[in-house]
Amino acid sequence: MKKKILIVGATGTIGKAVIHAIGDQHQIIPVRHQGGEYQVDIKDSNSIHALFQKTGKVDAIVSVTGQLHFGPLDKMTAEKFSIGLHDKLLGQVDLALIGQHFLNQGGSITLTSGIIAEEPIRYGANGTTVNAAIDAFVRAAAAELGNGIRINAVSPSVLQESLPNYAPYFPGFEAVPGSRVAQAYIRSIDGIQTGRIYKVW
Amino acid sequence: MKKKILIVGATGTIGKAVIHAIGDQHQIIPVRHQGGEYQVDIKDSNSIHALFQKTGKVDAIVSVTGQLHFGPLDKMTAEKFSIGLHDKLLGQVDLALIGQHFLNQGGSITLTSGIIAEEPIRYGANGTTVNAAIDAFVRAAAAELGNGIRINAVSPSVLQESLPNYAPYFPGFEAVPGSRVAQAYIRSIDGIQTGRIYKVW
Repeated sequence: MKKKILIVGATGTIGKAVIHAIGDQHQIIPVRHQGGEYQVDIKDSNSIHALFQKTGKVDAIVSVTGQLHFGPLDKMTAEKFSIGLHDKLLGQVDLALIGQHFLNQGGSITLTSGIIAEEPIRYGANGTTVNAAIDAFVRAAAAELGNGIRINAVSPSVLQESLPNYAPYFPGFEAVPGSRVAQAYIRSIDGIQTGRIYKVW
Repeated sequence: MKKKILIVGATGTIGKAVIHAIGDQHQIIPVRHQGGEYQVDIKDSNSIHALFQKTGKVDAIVSVTGQLHFGPLDKMTAEKFSIGLHDKLLGQVDLALIGQHFLNQGGSITLTSGIIAEEPIRYGANGTTVNAAIDAFVRAAAAELGNGIRINAVSPSVLQESLPNYAPYFPGFEAVPGSRVAQAYIRSIDGIQTGRIYKVW
């Protein structure tokens, strides 16, 4: 069955890989932060509401977006720490909270966390906290969502495509190609499980 | 060695149990949200700074405080979800971020999470997210803290003392007495480990 799939963060490395992998089988609604036909600021509930008013009901919500703060712990402040809390964490959570009311029966939500949830890296305390929080939200929400709606997260290792920028922060980590990470989103969208953290590492 | 121990949340069930268990061996500085000699609003960095200016350097920071939001997922909003993010999560994180600069060499920080980090309960999505985030922050911060400073979390099950209010939300959970939970804080304060989540369940 052809599904109507909202992809928030469509122009990022993972977003493009997901669209490349499933765009032929499903109807993709690509959403960007700025530009294009569909836009959203996930830090703003009104913006998320406006997006769903425009798209109408969908079969799957895929979030591959969200900012984190990276920096040394001894210089970290609540303000800096809030960047990840408000963007990658609360932004994705709010997309799920609002999105649950715009999903068809049996629809799915797929959020994105990351390997540093379990494997801390230098300067990554905000990212570890936020990614682990996303994984936890998924486990809790899966147990409470109604209408046959499923929710999962994909937790990728550092992307091969991101190594030019991030390699020094991931010593000894095995990088994964976006094309492989995309498969985890397909497992979530077209599979039957809920409350799963699909680790691509 | 007698340690100077800051206990934020000194009047709560766990705070009182910790003080009862170690007050004879160490110098306790009890901190409350309101009233008493030492006060702090953990949601306010200025308030945390003012507290440490008043106490001077300490050997241990123990946080047994923090609000969460409880409510059904299909009625949850970003605003409600923020309650736990700003209070129990960011409040405790900020206490650690600022506190690291007011700890003596070899000092310790002990935060409080909770069993629902791993065992979701009805209406508890915010609590699962926040508690798991605290556990994750502790793992990350432990790997980056300097000056021999340790950080751990205590993750209690529902307290026996809290059952009159919370029993319906914890079906089949084994409740634990505050006196037993207090022992986990002692392991963190007087032990040698860091990055540990002491589960009392």
